[in-house]
Amino acid sequence: MSSSVNPKGEYNRDSDYLSTRITNDPDAEYPVEPGRYRLVVARACPWANRAIIVRRLLGLEDVLSIGFCGPTHDQRSWTFDLDPGGVDPVLKIPRLQDAYFKRDPNYPKGITVPAMVDVQSGAVVTNDFAQLTLDLSTEWTAYHRDGAPQLYPEPLRDEIDEVAKRIYTEVNNGVYRAGFAGSQEAYDAAYERLFTALDWLSERLGDQRYLVGDTITEADVRLFTTLARFDAVYHGHFKCNRNKLTELPVLWAYARDLFQTPGFGDTVDFVQIKQHYYLVHTDINPTQIIPDGPDLSTWLTPHGREALGGRPFGDGTPPEPTRDSERVATGHGAG
Amino acid sequence: MSSSVNPKGEYNRDSDYLSTRITNDPDAEYPVEPGRYRLVVARACPWANRAIIVRRLLGLEDVLSIGFCGPTHDQRSWTFDLDPGGVDPVLKIPRLQDAYFKRDPNYPKGITVPAMVDVQSGAVVTNDFAQLTLDLSTEWTAYHRDGAPQLYPEPLRDEIDEVAKRIYTEVNNGVYRAGFAGSQEAYDAAYERLFTALDWLSERLGDQRYLVGDTITEADVRLFTTLARFDAVYHGHFKCNRNKLTELPVLWAYARDLFQTPGFGDTVDFVQIKQHYYLVHTDINPTQIIPDGPDLSTWLTPHGREALGGRPFGDGTPPEPTRDSERVATGHGAG
Repeated sequence: MSSSVNPKGEYNRDSDYLSTRITNDPDAEYPVEPGRYRLVVARACPWANRAIIVRRLLGLEDVLSIGFCGPTHDQRSWTFDLDPGGVDPVLKIPRLQDAYFKRDPNYPKGITVPAMVDVQSGAVVTNDFAQLTLDLSTEWTAYHRDGAPQLYPEPLRDEIDEVAKRIYTEVNNGVYRAGFAGSQEAYDAAYERLFTALDWLSERLGDQRYLVGDTITEADVRLFTTLARFDAVYHGHFKCNRNKLTELPVLWAYARDLFQTPGFGDTVDFVQIKQHYYLVHTDINPTQIIPDGPDLSTWLTPHGREALGGRPFGDGTPPEPTRDSERVATGHGAG
Repeated sequence: MSSSVNPKGEYNRDSDYLSTRITNDPDAEYPVEPGRYRLVVARACPWANRAIIVRRLLGLEDVLSIGFCGPTHDQRSWTFDLDPGGVDPVLKIPRLQDAYFKRDPNYPKGITVPAMVDVQSGAVVTNDFAQLTLDLSTEWTAYHRDGAPQLYPEPLRDEIDEVAKRIYTEVNNGVYRAGFAGSQEAYDAAYERLFTALDWLSERLGDQRYLVGDTITEADVRLFTTLARFDAVYHGHFKCNRNKLTELPVLWAYARDLFQTPGFGDTVDFVQIKQHYYLVHTDINPTQIIPDGPDLSTWLTPHGREALGGRPFGDGTPPEPTRDSERVATGHGAG
């Protein structure tokens, strides 16, 4: 993701993405097609983490391959430094920017994950992270696994969109607004907005297990990836420190409930998450020292949220265990 | 306090101070004498906070005046920027370095608080923070208030010295060793040492109310000033983040017990503490943004430590409320 800080010190996220879509219209330039695309992610990135979760919940592993960038990147973008020889085994490129430049040799914007790449041409089709996961739910239905959950069910879309919008502006992006604030005033305002929203979420989730309806939806996926990073990174590094997540009882139980649900915690790599933020943002952590805390073992403690009812996968079923090639190598994945 | 980082990235505290002592020997160069000296402190500084507490517990306000430097300082040392005109009203100097240069025009070491200044000559007598508070307890006895506690009682000195030594190397200085580590390896080792010591202290204080004996001693004063800063500063800024103090039940109750004891919490200025660390250390917080968290109101919650017995002031009594001129202007002082 790309961004800027204005003269008042306010952080603004660049929201102009490659908005091409991959759809189930067979006449589209980029139709849904098994094996045609590669989803490029970094486990560290919360926006990419959404796509990792949704792909796994829907069981798209066999039709949509995945490439993992390493946790750190330099000015010239994310790299495939985790792969043998530092090259993605399918796209045969060392840097994600190579796929962006295939799309546009003068690509002027941020080189971001997640990105959907057309394998044959090697060009990025879209990096519009918000639309990308919705399309996995709605355009790729022919390839969903048996028992895949409805993450974006028709009757709930308005409510999901509304909740997700507030979560995006206030929470997902809110932590960055605090962390990258260029003035005390901008930071103070960002801190206030963030914790106002977290209090709203605590209230909303006090007596319902999930954000919308009684099953897991896209809204939960979007909130989860920020909560998973909260104590590990945002609390200290981004100064989002009114409370730790562990000190917010409702949100902490909600986050653990999801973490312990197949498809969520098993995608979270706390080691890479910490490496990413603390090594890449030298403007706020010039020493590049990575904190050894916090104690993250408590993510696996009982959460008690079953008492609220809810049917995590609705009429569907949990996904199978993560396949070996996609397992989190380090950290405290629950799956 | 002054310091350096060696080639391995290990932080070393400069431990060479002006070791002149003020004693009750009337023939000494600097004998104990009412009104002769001024104790210069900064509320932000944990080493100076010790002296503020001990002076107040012993009731030395009328015989030993106090000057407060502001929370921040530049290369040229602590300043009296809180005073009208930016000048200490007794010493008539704008910067603490002026008193050091009176002592030695080429004073080569760190300009530190606390410092005892001979008012008439304007020269610093000593800045040996460790000896300074012990001397207030043992050399200034003729001027202690009625009911002053025994903070360094003869029969317990060996044990106090032993405990205080470990607290100094592992905790008081341990947080700085973590925060100023110049390499990941040095930080990792510092983090490990620090939390090993905090676990030892939790165990020691699990069934005894105070560190040595059954009353408050110098050892408690020394541990308290670091614990008071732990969540406000050391947890995030110095990356001492295995746990917050609030997550260590024994130490958190112990710290609140002292905080709520007259002479402790009423000397703590959380606002100045946060300003000091976050504004001065631009090498680890280049944005100089001061976090708005954590929620510090919980310092005043019940601690339950009375159940362990103990007699806070032994055969003595608590000090009177802080006089108006020395009250903490901001923050959450309990007294």
